[in-house]
Amino acid sequence: MSTMNTHPLDEAIALTETAPGRYTARTHPAYANAVGPFGGVTAALLLNAALKHPQALGEPISQTVHFAAPINDDILQIDANPVRTNRSTQHWLVQAFQQGHLVAMCTAVFAVRRDTWSAVDARFPGNLPPPDQLSPLQWSKQPPFTHCYDLRYISGMVSLDQAMRDGPQEQPHAESSLWVRDEPPRALDFSSLASLCDVFFPRVFIRRQRWTPIGTVTMTSYFHADSQTLAQIGSAHVLGCARAQVYQNGFFDQSAEIWSADGELLATTHQMVYYKD
Amino acid sequence: MSTMNTHPLDEAIALTETAPGRYTARTHPAYANAVGPFGGVTAALLLNAALKHPQALGEPISQTVHFAAPINDDILQIDANPVRTNRSTQHWLVQAFQQGHLVAMCTAVFAVRRDTWSAVDARFPGNLPPPDQLSPLQWSKQPPFTHCYDLRYISGMVSLDQAMRDGPQEQPHAESSLWVRDEPPRALDFSSLASLCDVFFPRVFIRRQRWTPIGTVTMTSYFHADSQTLAQIGSAHVLGCARAQVYQNGFFDQSAEIWSADGELLATTHQMVYYKD
Repeated sequence: MSTMNTHPLDEAIALTETAPGRYTARTHPAYANAVGPFGGVTAALLLNAALKHPQALGEPISQTVHFAAPINDDILQIDANPVRTNRSTQHWLVQAFQQGHLVAMCTAVFAVRRDTWSAVDARFPGNLPPPDQLSPLQWSKQPPFTHCYDLRYISGMVSLDQAMRDGPQEQPHAESSLWVRDEPPRALDFSSLASLCDVFFPRVFIRRQRWTPIGTVTMTSYFHADSQTLAQIGSAHVLGCARAQVYQNGFFDQSAEIWSADGELLATTHQMVYYKD
Repeated sequence: MSTMNTHPLDEAIALTETAPGRYTARTHPAYANAVGPFGGVTAALLLNAALKHPQALGEPISQTVHFAAPINDDILQIDANPVRTNRSTQHWLVQAFQQGHLVAMCTAVFAVRRDTWSAVDARFPGNLPPPDQLSPLQWSKQPPFTHCYDLRYISGMVSLDQAMRDGPQEQPHAESSLWVRDEPPRALDFSSLASLCDVFFPRVFIRRQRWTPIGTVTMTSYFHADSQTLAQIGSAHVLGCARAQVYQNGFFDQSAEIWSADGELLATTHQMVYYKD
């Protein structure tokens, strides 16, 4: 792994092959979260193990990540296995271990994309201020990984000032919109898109306007754009829109869309998150 | 397996244990789809392999199914493996084989539910006609499994009469609402709920008002209710609301909610579906 001109994300998802489909990797301090690495970079790392596999077919269509246990700042052993390859679709199982114990896994569908009738039913939000009219989020107490993203919230951020002044005020919903790109800038690809799918603050923070212990248990992302479309976006900001549907018995669901600035729906993503009162 | 007073769904998801976590099962003619079994019953079968496992912890929180290959009307070999068990959460991998080849798999999260602050951000649709004011869907050409559901569409069905008369008329969206229950009636539990998550006609049929070749490649369902809540619903109709967000390069995403009649959000579910022009 060269570090010269290498983006921190590429360092964080770097794999050393030890046998076909078997790799070692190492957690990266830049992408540290409060406990263990940022989930998005774990998603990107697991996806990369399939992307780099010599038998990979086509491009990612979906990924489901399981955050099975806390990941220590240490080496990971990764097994990537194309469990079923068809003519134009391929199903993956990727498992990551530390000291012989499973800490994360993902399944994925890869496929050869084809030109077909296409349509978008989801509505691209209009009348948004462009990224250069908004300030990037600055807050020194954030976990380190937040410095790896240029986050420009349009709406739905936790209002710390207000919470400090008035105490936490529950909001009627947990919708957020923000412009986001890698920091430093990096051309968009499936690795960074997979990671961006987890960049939204946990919806329970927004809904309750306070921090509570949380942890994503599983995240599913659907990739709607091909690699060429992603490459054309380059390092421009993309738009993320997130919300939750229900918080119940210690778990809430969170859904989000990631759009290009000109209204192409790049990814839709869903996760179940553990939370404590 | 006794067939006396046994519901067809329970026959279809019946497992014969051959070793701890290893089972055989058999496809059921009542749940046949156009090709192979209805995806919902495959989801329920794979989930059942975890539910019946002696090491199962708590109740299902999420399930992601991969429909890896066509399933023949034959025996399935199923391996269920709790790949990581924590204090209150457990991660599962369940794989189904025919003639030694993987045909389907699922991952799942099980957890011990706790009383917490809870809220629902999703809106329960109001002013709906009750199920007894609607006729169950009747159409002899449907695949067999549709006879296993009492489907009462409120909106967003394919209008065959109109399509026959005027040719297919593309619709501006693919939203549907319907009341649904097992037919014959059966008390709701996680098995039937997992299956119901796949009961929606493929959104591309609704959007384009015509049949096209399709196949779900992966489906993720989040279960928000506990077993007690499901048991209280019994065999009453539940409300399903489905839509798509984007159809692109041969794949579309589909999202749905399943509500109890009195407005409890039981499950949210998402899938990626292959389609041909």
